[in-house]
Amino acid sequence: MLATNLLAVTTTPVQPSEPAVLHLSQSVAQLTADLVDIESVSGDEARIADAVEAAVRRYDSLSVRRLGNVVIARTELGRPERVVLAGHLDTVPIADNLPSRVADGRLHGCGASDMKSGVALQLRMLELIGTGAVEPALDLTWLFYDCEEVEAARNGLNRVAAEHPELLQADLAILLEPTNGGVEGGCQGTMRAQLSTTGRRAHSARSWLGINAIHLVTPILARLADYRAREVEVEGLTYREGLNAVFIEGGVAGNVIPDRCLVTVNYRFAPDRSEAEAEAHLRSVFEGFELTVLDSAPGARPGLDRPLAQRAVTALGGQVAAKLGWTDVARFSALGIPALNFSPGDPSLAHRADESVELAQLERCEQLLVGFLSASPAAATN
Amino acid sequence: MLATNLLAVTTTPVQPSEPAVLHLSQSVAQLTADLVDIESVSGDEARIADAVEAAVRRYDSLSVRRLGNVVIARTELGRPERVVLAGHLDTVPIADNLPSRVADGRLHGCGASDMKSGVALQLRMLELIGTGAVEPALDLTWLFYDCEEVEAARNGLNRVAAEHPELLQADLAILLEPTNGGVEGGCQGTMRAQLSTTGRRAHSARSWLGINAIHLVTPILARLADYRAREVEVEGLTYREGLNAVFIEGGVAGNVIPDRCLVTVNYRFAPDRSEAEAEAHLRSVFEGFELTVLDSAPGARPGLDRPLAQRAVTALGGQVAAKLGWTDVARFSALGIPALNFSPGDPSLAHRADESVELAQLERCEQLLVGFLSASPAAATN
Repeated sequence: MLATNLLAVTTTPVQPSEPAVLHLSQSVAQLTADLVDIESVSGDEARIADAVEAAVRRYDSLSVRRLGNVVIARTELGRPERVVLAGHLDTVPIADNLPSRVADGRLHGCGASDMKSGVALQLRMLELIGTGAVEPALDLTWLFYDCEEVEAARNGLNRVAAEHPELLQADLAILLEPTNGGVEGGCQGTMRAQLSTTGRRAHSARSWLGINAIHLVTPILARLADYRAREVEVEGLTYREGLNAVFIEGGVAGNVIPDRCLVTVNYRFAPDRSEAEAEAHLRSVFEGFELTVLDSAPGARPGLDRPLAQRAVTALGGQVAAKLGWTDVARFSALGIPALNFSPGDPSLAHRADESVELAQLERCEQLLVGFLSASPAAATN
Repeated sequence: MLATNLLAVTTTPVQPSEPAVLHLSQSVAQLTADLVDIESVSGDEARIADAVEAAVRRYDSLSVRRLGNVVIARTELGRPERVVLAGHLDTVPIADNLPSRVADGRLHGCGASDMKSGVALQLRMLELIGTGAVEPALDLTWLFYDCEEVEAARNGLNRVAAEHPELLQADLAILLEPTNGGVEGGCQGTMRAQLSTTGRRAHSARSWLGINAIHLVTPILARLADYRAREVEVEGLTYREGLNAVFIEGGVAGNVIPDRCLVTVNYRFAPDRSEAEAEAHLRSVFEGFELTVLDSAPGARPGLDRPLAQRAVTALGGQVAAKLGWTDVARFSALGIPALNFSPGDPSLAHRADESVELAQLERCEQLLVGFLSASPAAATN
């Protein structure tokens, strides 16, 4: 069965000048390949957004909005609960990995894992519900957005959340970021901070006249090397923190005692801590040193205290782990919407030239999602 | 007297198109100003070398050689001992500090300290001896050379030492590098080495899957911070060593555990150690870490065990200190010629935009040098 699917996947050379066409009735594997073959590096999503919008507008039962390169489709069935299926259309830059190709039961190509396989799943759900092949137990919102792989100010989800939060309102969001086919709840926060030491320059032939700012960094690195990161349970999930130097830089010339050394640290913190608490923690770890927060993003609680989230976990395989990386679930969390991560992509292959997704995993995730969306609440919680 | 001298100094706008003319009968202060006003950044010494050569060729009693931009003049008086007076003609790049100007009893301008004041002293000695105003107790060799401020391969003294070592043969060399008017013996060696740590990259959200190469640097910095540098007595002079990080560099991206960190250290070592011994010492300090020697230069013993060097010290003020920075005295030392550093320049002002030299110091150094060169051995050692 798998072999048949593999042979059925055909790939398309990139032809950026012509409009791209998506056929949602195809297999999820073929749809993933078609999406991968539409080049859509961050900032250049118009063509893929056009193709998604055109495909989505074919279903009369859905209301569709286009906001820049964001496409939103909604059912209006009057169901008591609403779920958002969210995914970004952009990829990191191409790394000689287009067009897509099938090998060893996997589809290879830029965005195969992060996250065009997730977008293909979104579109497959839309086809099945839009054509009436699946009768949904919930109202649904599909969100396809741009510029996730770049700075937050350009992020399409961020923009919609700020300008049209009513379009995102829901009881649960499922973000189709790579999770290897499992469910991952919430996400950890992230903070980058810069530590600096200040010495005094001198000629290195008379080093005692100076103060070596690189040597002064020793206790900063010792505290990092000795740091024992917390493992924190939040709503039954274990989040494992981390505190690491990601950059170090110092030096003036080969014969000069350096007067400045900079260490950039990245703190990944569990969602029981706010950004303010994370900063206070860093200031306590590095007491005595100058510290400047460079940027940060809050974590998101998994929201597993809500019945709908629990039903989703049960339907999507019954297992849930803590999401350790930061994802856009935090943006939903900020709107008060619990959010889970779920998709067939492999997070460890994201952003790599050899990015790929397992085709069998695609099929499995499609079946699980259909099960969740069509199941009656009573059946799903058994 | 000083005031008269100050007023007597006139400065000349730079006119690189015309040949420069040096009048050696002027005061040492005026001669320094004239030399400073001939721009001669390393690699661009032809004009100043032409001026020096033309000035030097006026004295029939001297034999003169021109080798590239090196000028060598020698007396051939049949004296039992010979002294080299050596100085480089080049400067570091101009820093909006030309033409020269006099203020607060100092001559300001590029090279005023390092080392056109020294070259002016060389030329003044040549004038006094060449005209017979001073009867020298010794034979003399004047060496004016190019490209001291740049890589060793271009250094004019280095070239003459390799191609015409016979022209440098002497019983003592006095290098007119800045010493603040004191005598400094020998010089320390210098070695730069790179230490590296190797970790394993990982996403910083799952830092325990990686090994942080910046954290691994902790013991290297701790050993540097705890290092107690030797103070070594060599021929009665105390050399103070130093071992310092001069560069540190590590980091891949703000969300990646870095797999590599590089620390460059500079070891300044007393002349009782060879380069091989210095390297062995570094390898023992940093045992367990990858170490690569980037470059090194040997130190030079002060040569104070020789009677002529002792007479020079006595005549030039009676005080001698260890030279801690590396200078070209090591090149003489490598030829078996003891060498001292002596000139009015202030080493702490070398290479600075506000470089200057004290005019009173110029006069004093001229008198001391005349005293040494004209004194009989018996008188000088009293």
